[in-house]
Amino acid sequence: MPVSPTKQKIFEEAARLFQENGYLAASMRDLAQRVGLQVSSLYSHIGNKEELLQKICFDSARLYLEGMKNVEESAASPSEKLRRLISLHIQIATTDVTSVTIFSDEWRHLSEPYLQEFLAIRKDYEKRFSRILQQGIDASELVEMNTTVALFTILTSLRWLHRWYPEKRGISVKSLEAEILRFLFEGMKNPNAG
Amino acid sequence: MPVSPTKQKIFEEAARLFQENGYLAASMRDLAQRVGLQVSSLYSHIGNKEELLQKICFDSARLYLEGMKNVEESAASPSEKLRRLISLHIQIATTDVTSVTIFSDEWRHLSEPYLQEFLAIRKDYEKRFSRILQQGIDASELVEMNTTVALFTILTSLRWLHRWYPEKRGISVKSLEAEILRFLFEGMKNPNAG
Repeated sequence: MPVSPTKQKIFEEAARLFQENGYLAASMRDLAQRVGLQVSSLYSHIGNKEELLQKICFDSARLYLEGMKNVEESAASPSEKLRRLISLHIQIATTDVTSVTIFSDEWRHLSEPYLQEFLAIRKDYEKRFSRILQQGIDASELVEMNTTVALFTILTSLRWLHRWYPEKRGISVKSLEAEILRFLFEGMKNPNAG
Repeated sequence: MPVSPTKQKIFEEAARLFQENGYLAASMRDLAQRVGLQVSSLYSHIGNKEELLQKICFDSARLYLEGMKNVEESAASPSEKLRRLISLHIQIATTDVTSVTIFSDEWRHLSEPYLQEFLAIRKDYEKRFSRILQQGIDASELVEMNTTVALFTILTSLRWLHRWYPEKRGISVKSLEAEILRFLFEGMKNPNAG
């Protein structure tokens, strides 16, 4: 269902406000000021502050789940599937910076039943990610390893990107992606070193 | 300077409280209750809530800085220095769970001038870490890579450990350390794969 331009603006400003001040410290008064509305008018567009957090968290979750579904349904090899998933994380983290910040750092403030729902989606995503790691090991494309340790190492290793803007650091998103994929697949050791 | 047992207990309970509720949501009333004091007595032991956050953040920072100094002064090769630093992070994250949680997630709530001081220490640490990466590349122990990308990938990749208790997951800290070091140095690709 398409949202009205005002509602869309509210969501965008809310994401920015939560990113700057943190969800807990962000006030609806500040948000109203940013979108040029009275606080009372703001509430006619959205339910409350948490509704904004819910929208941002579940919209981001949907992006990852859609990416996972596309990857799973592709005919690619397990390691190619992994490359695509890691690239997807890098793409989302470097293009949708504000939403990813909230998604990564502020989801803890969701209330029930949203918190449980969010955690269930995340667990499902991690399970599917682990399954692809295991398929890569079974196909001898990846080394024998603890898939849980590998899963968290990979996913967490990308969690600086949404706070680090590649274009401001003299590196393109494409080069960044190549660097990270090389690091995760081949490690930092020089294979020619003793 | 040694601190009194009461003060020590206040610091420990504060770390736990901040971890459970987040710094912003944690109240001095809750803290007083946990240590069995009246709020007014609590204030006779410590200045205010932020003093507790400062102590936790700067105590943790000191652990990393001391580790860095030991590593820098050792005669080890650059890649051995890196292994030791990564091991240090794993050791701290798996033994001093509560403090590391606050150090990792809640430092943003430090006020000035503590925030700037904390960020300066962190920047210094990162610079020294990058220097060792560069020494490893120069010595051909590590592959040619963007040291900034490598730095953040390594440091961030360890930031799930303080939320994940190895002993509860059927893996020893020692095995965990071996898995992570292998992953970061050699990557997940099977070197015998095509």
